Amino acid sequence: METDKRPLILVSNDDGYRARGVRELIDMLRPFGEIVAVCPEGPRSGGSMAITVNEALRLAEVPDFEGCKMYKVNGSPVDCVKLGFYVALGGRKPDLVVAGINHGSNSAVNVVYSGTMGATFEGCAFGVPSVGFSLTDHDPQADFSGCRPFVEKIVEMTLRNGLPAGMCLNVNVPNSVEPPKEMRTVRAARGNWNDEYQRYTDPFGRPFYWLTGSFHNEEPEARDTDEWCLAHGIVSVVPTLLDRTAPASGQPEWLRSLKF
Amino acid sequence: METDKRPLILVSNDDGYRARGVRELIDMLRPFGEIVAVCPEGPRSGGSMAITVNEALRLAEVPDFEGCKMYKVNGSPVDCVKLGFYVALGGRKPDLVVAGINHGSNSAVNVVYSGTMGATFEGCAFGVPSVGFSLTDHDPQADFSGCRPFVEKIVEMTLRNGLPAGMCLNVNVPNSVEPPKEMRTVRAARGNWNDEYQRYTDPFGRPFYWLTGSFHNEEPEARDTDEWCLAHGIVSVVPTLLDRTAPASGQPEWLRSLKF
Repeated sequence: METDKRPLILVSNDDGYRARGVRELIDMLRPFGEIVAVCPEGPRSGGSMAITVNEALRLAEVPDFEGCKMYKVNGSPVDCVKLGFYVALGGRKPDLVVAGINHGSNSAVNVVYSGTMGATFEGCAFGVPSVGFSLTDHDPQADFSGCRPFVEKIVEMTLRNGLPAGMCLNVNVPNSVEPPKEMRTVRAARGNWNDEYQRYTDPFGRPFYWLTGSFHNEEPEARDTDEWCLAHGIVSVVPTLLDRTAPASGQPEWLRSLKF
Repeated sequence: METDKRPLILVSNDDGYRARGVRELIDMLRPFGEIVAVCPEGPRSGGSMAITVNEALRLAEVPDFEGCKMYKVNGSPVDCVKLGFYVALGGRKPDLVVAGINHGSNSAVNVVYSGTMGATFEGCAFGVPSVGFSLTDHDPQADFSGCRPFVEKIVEMTLRNGLPAGMCLNVNVPNSVEPPKEMRTVRAARGNWNDEYQRYTDPFGRPFYWLTGSFHNEEPEARDTDEWCLAHGIVSVVPTLLDRTAPASGQPEWLRSLKF
């Protein structure tokens, strides 16, 4: 980052450009630089890192948007970030990608399904320091004010220090009664979804299904996890990798010595 | 796995139930156990780990499918695996999840966008040993016969040995002139997509975009990578993690000592 010009910040999300979370985020980021936002035209929660390969994509500017350039895209969060890099920014490389603020938690294993983190990983894949922010509150009218000091701190430090290649940040802010006063760098808790599908019958007698379920934390006492922090009113910061290769040290012998 | 009954294998893919790759895969897997397949009703390449949360899902049996139960779903590869676990298998836990065989490579960073690997990771999240197979040939009529001995070997070894919790396998088979004769456990090559968007104008004068681009391998000489193997006619096996947390040893000091 050159210090003699304002940082360029690309913003995206997965709740769509109308969501309150991204408007609040833009308001928090405005003092840090020039903001260009590219967001899905509608909700894309659970979009992960999906890309659109078999359909035409549209990018349209949303006029008069909170004093910054906002574009909407008929695609996934990753489509938004890619179209941001290659079309909306016209080749200018941003200094930072910020996604969110998500309406709802992206802690533990949820990072892999999250469209917010999908956008964040895509920024990381492009070689730009990238951060995803989430508030543990799904309410469309959620109060994001508790996020502000943490967004400011993380953005300021990430702009100043950068992030190692291939690493991005997954930041979750608890929706606690008292605004959070603490922030910790932790790991994603181990756990899984006990999914269920609610079964319905349509007017023609055909079944259809809707995903539901609840998250099961396998290690609720582990204080070095994001879930523990969030349960205790603490903001969690999880440094997260784009590369998913298992280190050789964790591989079983039969794999390390695989022959044909 | 109990040895006194046949293994139960859940199969999925991202090219859709009509794809040649999944039919060939089922033919290769048949000797290993009982097969139940749940696949997207149409192509879902690039589906990553996207889940459908805002729409109704349908699951319908495809009659007379290659001598096994095949269901089609109007959702993503992960939706297919989840509906497989919770509906199609009716609560029976499979011994193995196998996804593919993908028409096209899923090496290097492509693992994060891949719907084939999305299905594989979902099996892993459910606590089942899971393997994704891909052939480096996008042709709908691709010749999958070179995959067979490697699918057999990997499936046999995975059924026998299992995989550590949270680890699954990303197997890529090169589409070489001579059938591959070697297989190696390696890591994902570092690299990135030089994306481009082809710009069109619709009959009403409005622009639309279509994703294109080419993969740039940052380390073509690194022999311990999947890209190197595939370029040299060798099957690559990359042990891959569901959890994306960066190990503390790789985190920069400012993150490890983060305070508020």
